[in-house]
Amino acid sequence: MKLIFSPSSPFVRKVRIAAIELGLIDRIEFLPTTVAPGQPNDDYARITPLKKLPALILDNGDVILDSYVIAEYLDELAGGGKLIPASGPTRWQVKADHSLLQGMLDSMLLCRYEKAVRPQGLQWQAWLDDHWNRAWQGMARFNGQPEKLSRPLDIVQIALVCVLGYADFRFADCGWRKAYPNLDAFHERMLTRQSVKISLPPAA
Amino acid sequence: MKLIFSPSSPFVRKVRIAAIELGLIDRIEFLPTTVAPGQPNDDYARITPLKKLPALILDNGDVILDSYVIAEYLDELAGGGKLIPASGPTRWQVKADHSLLQGMLDSMLLCRYEKAVRPQGLQWQAWLDDHWNRAWQGMARFNGQPEKLSRPLDIVQIALVCVLGYADFRFADCGWRKAYPNLDAFHERMLTRQSVKISLPPAA
Repeated sequence: MKLIFSPSSPFVRKVRIAAIELGLIDRIEFLPTTVAPGQPNDDYARITPLKKLPALILDNGDVILDSYVIAEYLDELAGGGKLIPASGPTRWQVKADHSLLQGMLDSMLLCRYEKAVRPQGLQWQAWLDDHWNRAWQGMARFNGQPEKLSRPLDIVQIALVCVLGYADFRFADCGWRKAYPNLDAFHERMLTRQSVKISLPPAA
Repeated sequence: MKLIFSPSSPFVRKVRIAAIELGLIDRIEFLPTTVAPGQPNDDYARITPLKKLPALILDNGDVILDSYVIAEYLDELAGGGKLIPASGPTRWQVKADHSLLQGMLDSMLLCRYEKAVRPQGLQWQAWLDDHWNRAWQGMARFNGQPEKLSRPLDIVQIALVCVLGYADFRFADCGWRKAYPNLDAFHERMLTRQSVKISLPPAA
């Protein structure tokens, strides 16, 4: 399998941590690319018109899109039910929590584009505030659910550590550790995992 | 079950069509709300900090987020394997195709916000062109895969009809019918389904 990736993508990081934890990392070849809004990448657009990272190319040529679907595929490849419960109400709770975290990351990327990529003078503060607030209120929710932070490793914890790592990477002054002490303790515990430590984003 | 919805959301439409086709529509109570970037909706933000539509509230109070996860939940409730293959390579192909369509809709909403919601003078044409191109090239891909347009109904076809309906609703002059005749024929066939016809977006 080949994973099209960039080291700064939090979505890629989620797949990388999942692949390490599932024991599948050695079966994946990592192929780097660069994507940025408003800039063409014709080679990657032929693989996915969305130009979103990552994409997993299977040995038969099939392309799996979306970091969550890739994580689900890898989970099945590893036997199923490892990072996503195989059945029951917790299956849907985990999927819904992951959807929330995915949306938080989407909003954080929109904030990053608004502040650092969109040309000066075209910023819309209400848009920025709204999207940052979605991520921030999402963090509050997980901070208030300590049982989700301490249970055996799952895709919710992996996605959450990617949210927090991306906050450090692109919004270093946001103060999430002070506002959300349960998330701070969770993040410290997660950093004792090799998969989480070696996948930290590069220096901003 | 309760579905928080808006009649103009293409993500809601996808869930609505799926619920009708799965025979579950009578078990869902529809609760309307309104969301717009930069505008608060505190009641809905308590249900989901993302304020994205739709959200499904189960009878036990659990909230399922993301239109795809809701569709998957309804599919399981209807016995499983109805709109999403239960196993095998086609399962992952359908999931990946749906991810592409979901990303196309996300890009189309970003185009809509850029053109019609962001204050005048703050538009960034390269962003608009990039996101429109993602949706447009995605349409080209499905136009070139007629077997996906004619097989038994699945979540890919449902999501695709929602993409095309949203193009009519918000980008009426984009010319997709002329550019993509296979999609035009597909859309006409889909409109013979009651679920697709009654869920058409309201007049723009």
